Amino acid sequence: MKLFAVDLYSLTPEDIAAIEALGYEVTVAKPDQAPDEVCRDEEIEVALCEHGYLKKHMGKMPNVKMIQMTYAGLDLMGPELFEVYKDAAICGGSGIYGVPLAEWSVSKVLDIYRCERHFEQHRKEHKWSWEGSTETAELWGKTVLLLGTGDIGAACARRFGAFGCRVIGVNTTGRAVEGFDECHPISALDPLLPAADVVVVCLPRTPATIGLLDASRLAALKKGAVLVVNSRGRIIDEEALCRLLDEGHLKGAALDCFATEPLPEDSPLWSQKNLSVTPHRGGVTKAIRRFVLRRYLDNLARYRDGRPRLARIDYSRGY
Amino acid sequence: MKLFAVDLYSLTPEDIAAIEALGYEVTVAKPDQAPDEVCRDEEIEVALCEHGYLKKHMGKMPNVKMIQMTYAGLDLMGPELFEVYKDAAICGGSGIYGVPLAEWSVSKVLDIYRCERHFEQHRKEHKWSWEGSTETAELWGKTVLLLGTGDIGAACARRFGAFGCRVIGVNTTGRAVEGFDECHPISALDPLLPAADVVVVCLPRTPATIGLLDASRLAALKKGAVLVVNSRGRIIDEEALCRLLDEGHLKGAALDCFATEPLPEDSPLWSQKNLSVTPHRGGVTKAIRRFVLRRYLDNLARYRDGRPRLARIDYSRGY
Repeated sequence: MKLFAVDLYSLTPEDIAAIEALGYEVTVAKPDQAPDEVCRDEEIEVALCEHGYLKKHMGKMPNVKMIQMTYAGLDLMGPELFEVYKDAAICGGSGIYGVPLAEWSVSKVLDIYRCERHFEQHRKEHKWSWEGSTETAELWGKTVLLLGTGDIGAACARRFGAFGCRVIGVNTTGRAVEGFDECHPISALDPLLPAADVVVVCLPRTPATIGLLDASRLAALKKGAVLVVNSRGRIIDEEALCRLLDEGHLKGAALDCFATEPLPEDSPLWSQKNLSVTPHRGGVTKAIRRFVLRRYLDNLARYRDGRPRLARIDYSRGY
Repeated sequence: MKLFAVDLYSLTPEDIAAIEALGYEVTVAKPDQAPDEVCRDEEIEVALCEHGYLKKHMGKMPNVKMIQMTYAGLDLMGPELFEVYKDAAICGGSGIYGVPLAEWSVSKVLDIYRCERHFEQHRKEHKWSWEGSTETAELWGKTVLLLGTGDIGAACARRFGAFGCRVIGVNTTGRAVEGFDECHPISALDPLLPAADVVVVCLPRTPATIGLLDASRLAALKKGAVLVVNSRGRIIDEEALCRLLDEGHLKGAALDCFATEPLPEDSPLWSQKNLSVTPHRGGVTKAIRRFVLRRYLDNLARYRDGRPRLARIDYSRGY
């Protein structure tokens, strides 16, 4: 089986040996090399590369049977490559980012509850002051509403649960998921919003989720609630969020993803009161190479054995 | 049973009713009122007050049988009150602060691993930049060494464990404690230090712990390790810590307690690179009132029933 890999994550000789041990003949290309520059691309059966690379070389690798990407959201991929490579199983990165995104999410909620920014300002002023400390709250005993119960939601659930939170999940059908105290269908979202102390958005961006947390749903959140978005922009109404932060209706919020990325330098979000902004890097930490390699090896073994692949994308479903 | 309470935590009518329901006759004083200003103090059997109040009114309440404080460390109390009230069971606040201090500790380690201060600086400059993001690490898979396996250590262990960390505890005898992967006696500390990615100090300050993490033990920590102190100052060598942070040997550190408190305005710790400084408030969050009341009610029921009290202080032991 001929495997073609674009060397995005610095595959080591050990990584390549592990892929070869599964029965693959490996060709590695640099990101700026076309498939047919480094091998006879019609012989490629499996490809490890990203959507941007596929778009650039659309139609190359005409007989590819499986394409493994590391991106999790097909909203960025566009329909064309699913049309051109319709005979291939195209697999995404869902399941790779749960650990770092759950850590990012818990970290942001704790910083907001602990008034971290406030105490950091005191530190800069060399001020030993308990001012603001009566506002310091704790995760313990809080109700956390996780929108999305996939890999990221489940990783969040385990961690928030260990802090003594009640963890409620929302997914398409309301099916129960391990680690959640209860799960509800997305159609039953509205009554859950005023009861949550913390809302974490870990949903893919699909026609069904765009604009889900619109101005009226955000306004329905409990006074003092905390909102965190770790997945995609355009699921929440950013302007409505800013108004609720200005009014003090929400205690704080943290966004790692935005309607427009990169966030323009003149966006008011950068200096919005009680809002933390990070540049869509919540999912990237040092261990990500290991998580990517684990996915490669897992799905390559599944392909070889004819078993269902993880995170195979169904374009019509939206993820 | 006559109970005297100094109203430090704003006891509500419901709180007082709950104490009365246990069979106590309750007198509440303001912090600036002496016991004998508000009642016949020789009749007081149980007192809810702090060490500072006791010192100010030393010898009042001559027949008190139980004193319940909320302070956890007797290092701040001094020997005299244990001499004057030697016939009373003096109970401390150990067990009240586990939840907030564990949240503080996890929050600080996550902020250090995620280069939070770095990204916050980018935010202030309206800079969408991935610079620094390759340094972002995760808790998952790390080895966390908790010095102290009491209430705070155990609350830390549960949370770090849920993040996928290996959790190692150190206590006096090496006895096993739930939530820890392994426990060792403090006499076997030295070989554990170079193996830990994260060290959290949750020890009381006693003659045995003062100076425990001296310059040579701190230097034995792994390159890139993270150090967090949530309990008391003087257990670590602050100057040695600063040198290791300057040299980049440690990735970062967070201190909530210091050799000298309040930390003087001209202390170099305030502006030490890669050091987070908070004003000994890690243990105080909004829920602390509930945790204090729970301890009051628990120990008052135990006193009434003649059962052993929680966190009864043994002055000779040091906690």
